[in-house]
Amino acid sequence: MKKNLILLLAGLAVLASCRQPVPVETITGPFSASTNIAGREFPKIHPDLRVEFRVDAPEAQSVAVDICGQVCPLEKDEEGRWCGFTQVLEPGFHYYFLVVDNVRIADPSSTLFFGCGLMASAIEIPEAGVDFYLDRDVPRGEVRMQRYWSPSLNTWRTCYVYVPAEYEQNPGKRYPVLYLQHGGGEDETGWSRQGHADIILDNLLAEKKATPMLIVMDYGQAGDFSKILLEETIPMIDKLYRTQPDAAHRAMAGLSFGGGQSWSIGLKHPEVFSSIGIFSSGMFGGVSYAPFDLEASLPELTADAAAFNAAHPVFYISCGEGDPRIEYTRKAADALLEKGANVQFKAWPGGHEWQPWRKSLHEFLQLIFK
Amino acid sequence: MKKNLILLLAGLAVLASCRQPVPVETITGPFSASTNIAGREFPKIHPDLRVEFRVDAPEAQSVAVDICGQVCPLEKDEEGRWCGFTQVLEPGFHYYFLVVDNVRIADPSSTLFFGCGLMASAIEIPEAGVDFYLDRDVPRGEVRMQRYWSPSLNTWRTCYVYVPAEYEQNPGKRYPVLYLQHGGGEDETGWSRQGHADIILDNLLAEKKATPMLIVMDYGQAGDFSKILLEETIPMIDKLYRTQPDAAHRAMAGLSFGGGQSWSIGLKHPEVFSSIGIFSSGMFGGVSYAPFDLEASLPELTADAAAFNAAHPVFYISCGEGDPRIEYTRKAADALLEKGANVQFKAWPGGHEWQPWRKSLHEFLQLIFK
Repeated sequence: MKKNLILLLAGLAVLASCRQPVPVETITGPFSASTNIAGREFPKIHPDLRVEFRVDAPEAQSVAVDICGQVCPLEKDEEGRWCGFTQVLEPGFHYYFLVVDNVRIADPSSTLFFGCGLMASAIEIPEAGVDFYLDRDVPRGEVRMQRYWSPSLNTWRTCYVYVPAEYEQNPGKRYPVLYLQHGGGEDETGWSRQGHADIILDNLLAEKKATPMLIVMDYGQAGDFSKILLEETIPMIDKLYRTQPDAAHRAMAGLSFGGGQSWSIGLKHPEVFSSIGIFSSGMFGGVSYAPFDLEASLPELTADAAAFNAAHPVFYISCGEGDPRIEYTRKAADALLEKGANVQFKAWPGGHEWQPWRKSLHEFLQLIFK
Repeated sequence: MKKNLILLLAGLAVLASCRQPVPVETITGPFSASTNIAGREFPKIHPDLRVEFRVDAPEAQSVAVDICGQVCPLEKDEEGRWCGFTQVLEPGFHYYFLVVDNVRIADPSSTLFFGCGLMASAIEIPEAGVDFYLDRDVPRGEVRMQRYWSPSLNTWRTCYVYVPAEYEQNPGKRYPVLYLQHGGGEDETGWSRQGHADIILDNLLAEKKATPMLIVMDYGQAGDFSKILLEETIPMIDKLYRTQPDAAHRAMAGLSFGGGQSWSIGLKHPEVFSSIGIFSSGMFGGVSYAPFDLEASLPELTADAAAFNAAHPVFYISCGEGDPRIEYTRKAADALLEKGANVQFKAWPGGHEWQPWRKSLHEFLQLIFK
């Protein structure tokens, strides 16, 4: 059956382009990105971390790659394929677009991820010596697509719920819960698909470096998310899952837009959440944001730092060193320390991207629920 | 915070464009497709089931919509947007592409689905009086992303596992399992994202029209899938889930390419599977397929029809009336009946598309494990 033979070969190509990122150490020459659709040769990552593109568009007038703020024009070869290289890219996960005759499109060769407010192409550039978010042969938890009805939005919602591998083996055990929020223009799929949150925690649990917990990843840009999370999502999770339903066993963290929510919802509801993580948030100030006023934002800290610290065993703030938010974030962390907050601040290499967020989660998971 | 206001508005737009399909009866005028990215106005479905497109591509030379085998050219308006209508479309779920300067691309306004071997735009056209695959206020099961290691492929795989809402409430109960396969160019996400298999079963269970069961949806176009399914997937599922691990409580069904696998794997392993469903398979003959030889394909039926029927309490074959496979499929079903097979054949309105597959699953689920 000719058609089926072709499909079989397409299937076998899955082997050629392994669907998981690979340790860069294992790479000897140019290789197809792990984020490519199975069997697509390009984009191809070269050992110097430039990315090679070949795009079939014989009748296009111009084709370019828009990635990490650089626009790299491609050149048409005699077969009508548009070819070229990016500059050297930072390791990590980068959204990108093809620009065909000035129309920004998703690359048909890429697996797509919900980011930038739409389904976006992306490429995974491995980082030397960094494998905490790569698949290992350890017990794997599940990510469950949990549908639930939202009365306030009058619609069904889906939140992603990570449960550790041991969850089903311990029917009597209850677990703490981390509420983990995505960034602006992303959705509930971001932390598992782009961030590999499930793999990161599976690996930590196998090393006994984290406490077994659930991670709830919900869509945070709908309606009044504070109301949804506090009155709809959390009660649903505490009803359907074996949780430890108190503040001591609830943490909230988020990246960028979700980091702001960890402050405005998590930190502001100590009766619901204890530990808080804020990764690369713009809330501490910057061009498009109001100046950060600690006194006005966190009077409870000024009022009683000891009580504040007791309510928040882990208060973690991080940002990429190449992120325009770093200066404001560092200032805010210093101001918090000055006021007596037991805040932990971490600056990671990289910009406003997933690599610092993965590293922040990896560190935060080792601190909470201890 | 200006940025956050914009994001909040984007979020609120979720309400405007409800993410679930809506009953066509409730529609009074043109409406944004439920398959659009939240907040995107176009494509818009008109009550006559023509679809209106508006695409921003001021510098493109030509833009068209390629949908259901028709290519509909769009026309540029004074603002540089390319506008136009499709012809009247069949109700159901249709993959489509934009063609910009003869490059086939995914529509940035559409949620994308893995089909046609890549991430494809698609549009959901509601069907009057048909709501069995639409969200209802009933207990909702979960779809779990179950990662597992495949020794034969030497890689991690993800299969989707539906568990009914009652699963966690009945820790002592074991369940039958349906292994449900996607079509060529689709993957393990197809039956839940495009097909709404989880919603279909949730709704049937709420009506007491189906037996509570698990549904396992795996990627079937990798390596030797027969070996993977029989030696890797099924043992993993029987280990991690509370299954009834015998043939009487295992069924296999699939659409198109997956229908052929239901025959070549499911029907050929009565020691593993009992009931079998084959939706819109090309295996029964046609231009691109070898002629179907029942004697050679199924000697066990000729040898002992009674034993064959006893081993397969449900043997269900279906196809769309507008599918080029219908003639060959009907012939094969007649030949099977003639040989004494207790086969149930159903022809549905529509072509080689999801609407007949959803209807086939809806019927098949009501027949098995009774």
